[in-house]
Amino acid sequence: MPAHDDGATAESTTEQPNETDAGDGDGFVVTPYEVSGELDYDKLLEEFGADRLTAEDVRRFPDHPMLRRGIYYAGRDVDAYLDAAAGDAVTADAATADVDAATGEDGAGGTHSIVTGVGPSGPMHLGHALVFYLAKELQDATGATVYVPLSDDEKYLSKDLTFEAVGEATRENLRDLLAIGFDPERTRFVLDSADADVVYPLAATFAKDVTMNQLEATYGRPDNVGMGFYPAVQTAHLLLPQLVEGAHPTLVPVAVDQDPHVRVSRDVAAKARYPVRKPGALLGKFLPDLAGPGKMSSSEGAAIYLTDDAETVREKVLEHAYSGGRDSVSEHREHGGDPSVDVAFQYLRYFFERDDDRLAELATQYREGELLSGELKLEAVDAITEFLESHQRRRDALGDVRDELEPYRLTEAERERALDAAGVPRL
Amino acid sequence: MPAHDDGATAESTTEQPNETDAGDGDGFVVTPYEVSGELDYDKLLEEFGADRLTAEDVRRFPDHPMLRRGIYYAGRDVDAYLDAAAGDAVTADAATADVDAATGEDGAGGTHSIVTGVGPSGPMHLGHALVFYLAKELQDATGATVYVPLSDDEKYLSKDLTFEAVGEATRENLRDLLAIGFDPERTRFVLDSADADVVYPLAATFAKDVTMNQLEATYGRPDNVGMGFYPAVQTAHLLLPQLVEGAHPTLVPVAVDQDPHVRVSRDVAAKARYPVRKPGALLGKFLPDLAGPGKMSSSEGAAIYLTDDAETVREKVLEHAYSGGRDSVSEHREHGGDPSVDVAFQYLRYFFERDDDRLAELATQYREGELLSGELKLEAVDAITEFLESHQRRRDALGDVRDELEPYRLTEAERERALDAAGVPRL
Repeated sequence: MPAHDDGATAESTTEQPNETDAGDGDGFVVTPYEVSGELDYDKLLEEFGADRLTAEDVRRFPDHPMLRRGIYYAGRDVDAYLDAAAGDAVTADAATADVDAATGEDGAGGTHSIVTGVGPSGPMHLGHALVFYLAKELQDATGATVYVPLSDDEKYLSKDLTFEAVGEATRENLRDLLAIGFDPERTRFVLDSADADVVYPLAATFAKDVTMNQLEATYGRPDNVGMGFYPAVQTAHLLLPQLVEGAHPTLVPVAVDQDPHVRVSRDVAAKARYPVRKPGALLGKFLPDLAGPGKMSSSEGAAIYLTDDAETVREKVLEHAYSGGRDSVSEHREHGGDPSVDVAFQYLRYFFERDDDRLAELATQYREGELLSGELKLEAVDAITEFLESHQRRRDALGDVRDELEPYRLTEAERERALDAAGVPRL
Repeated sequence: MPAHDDGATAESTTEQPNETDAGDGDGFVVTPYEVSGELDYDKLLEEFGADRLTAEDVRRFPDHPMLRRGIYYAGRDVDAYLDAAAGDAVTADAATADVDAATGEDGAGGTHSIVTGVGPSGPMHLGHALVFYLAKELQDATGATVYVPLSDDEKYLSKDLTFEAVGEATRENLRDLLAIGFDPERTRFVLDSADADVVYPLAATFAKDVTMNQLEATYGRPDNVGMGFYPAVQTAHLLLPQLVEGAHPTLVPVAVDQDPHVRVSRDVAAKARYPVRKPGALLGKFLPDLAGPGKMSSSEGAAIYLTDDAETVREKVLEHAYSGGRDSVSEHREHGGDPSVDVAFQYLRYFFERDDDRLAELATQYREGELLSGELKLEAVDAITEFLESHQRRRDALGDVRDELEPYRLTEAERERALDAAGVPRL
């Protein structure tokens, strides 16, 4: 275990994955939920060659439980992003940055952007949504530009869905994204089909740099030629902020197993002919499925949707959330529960209990049998419901999606700049 | 040799490929130029399962030397196209035609369209241009709609060219296409990059129906993921007229070896969910390279460009055109020349000598040694120069390409209709 791992979590009452802590009953320890069948987050990092976040990295990020608690625990080129966010001079390599990086308007720092997208195939659940809330907080704190690509093409091509069904999911997802309250001056929603005038020429440009061998090594053999092309579309997504605004550090928060996809765009970005830097990555862990650790939160499994009302959340958590408690109250009182596998606790840890002291207290009480499983679940229900009710109020207050979306769409000038920067010819 | 082959050429003084005629000195015979290394046009048809044009097919087409003389000699679903062109009711299958086919405005017939494109990688030569002149004549005669896709993406992706260089070729090719004088009411030029707002969503739609196995069986393993996607883009090109105007017969004039590419789009069109008929094909032979039979006319070889002036044409033909004549004048006078391999004669036969009697006379005189190779070449130089000077006058009279192109671009309503017909969702 590298030294900087301990450092990264030194200030936290919940700890990072650490085999030496597993099963250690001495004091408060949240062991990883990498149980049987689950991703080995350490091994993945080693395999991919990404860097574990240092304590210094975590300190330099705006304070957020998902960073403090090591949910996002690794990355690529995070330093450059943090330098720009801190207002340090953007040290763009002259060879790859022929467009000057603009400085942030409010003096928050150099241009720095986050790209985090969604593939609209159905309603958004918490596992989709939290990263957008993180991005919004980072934007609020340092003026980060946020690009949100919606890959309707990819969902249509990869799932047994009509394009029309994907279109409906897209409109619904957009309502949720709009409800988050991003700053329209610094945020762009990009739809692959509706913004194909810019997405396709960029993707075609980058497609020349992605071989079939690279495709199949990264994604396996695709089902159809559309999915074969999608890595180029994704590269267009990840490089778009720099094509629009000039070369600058970009951060792509993504579950760690998605890192190879980021690497495709990093390989393209490394070509000298594009005025971009390699996009950086912020690599994280999955929000667990209600069914328990070892399962990632997904549309297929039991998940809490952004549209769920209080009663539904209560029912889902109480009846379906995997518990780390004992079979009977008396057993629980005697031996205590295991917060590390308790889904209610993990939801609080990931996002919903912002107060570290309170989280530690809950963990301790749970381990010591003072707090019953049902009581812990109700803590989670309350926190999630409060979050959702606030989200839903903003969502309900939205008008027509097209109208609401307008200030978040790429302007004509931005489209032209992106195409120019990539060398796409015009008539 | 099937009976309809003889029939198709019975009215012509120049004949179709026919092994039994090869080397036959009895009267006027133009033997095929399928010599060593050249395509076996008959074998290709058999392999692809396309149909040789019947005499009746040829009679029903507007009269044109490229049809009369069997340059275009085969096809797929040509009957349906000819029915529509003749004003017969379009017998659109109810299952595949949920949009009524509009009837031609001038009473020339039902809606029928031609799709013939160009991949802009350099200046256009005669081998590129003749099919557009054929399309223009078919349009003049029966009111055919003509769609001309310009696949700048494909040329950028498949050649060692920058996108910018392809862009310059595109602008130059557009000037040539505009000079042809298509009816802007019935003609659409579609640029993959500039019209990506409609081309990409359609291509993505159809891409779901093209598997990697089909791709590799048809095209071989592509160099990059962009070329892997291109069959879907091409399918969008070929189905576009029907998506805009409703299901109707479409004809794709193309060199016979390109037939597999048409078949990809026919396979997609066969899916019940698209309101289109399978595009038909009109399969032809290559205009020979100046270097002689057995080589197709190509940008790489010696070719006559649409921008060549009279002096250049004269020099190219006199100095570089492969001759079917004898080594010395006396030998030629005694034994005669072979028009079937003489490139100057073949250019006259393909397109530039419209008068069959005159063409036959030239062939006879050449075979009998009356006409020397240089004299035959001068006949071709005069005909080609006359054609080019007329083309260049119209080209020079054009204003700014963007302005000139405007009436030939898809209207907003046409874009919307195409996306709707393919089931692409909108915001």
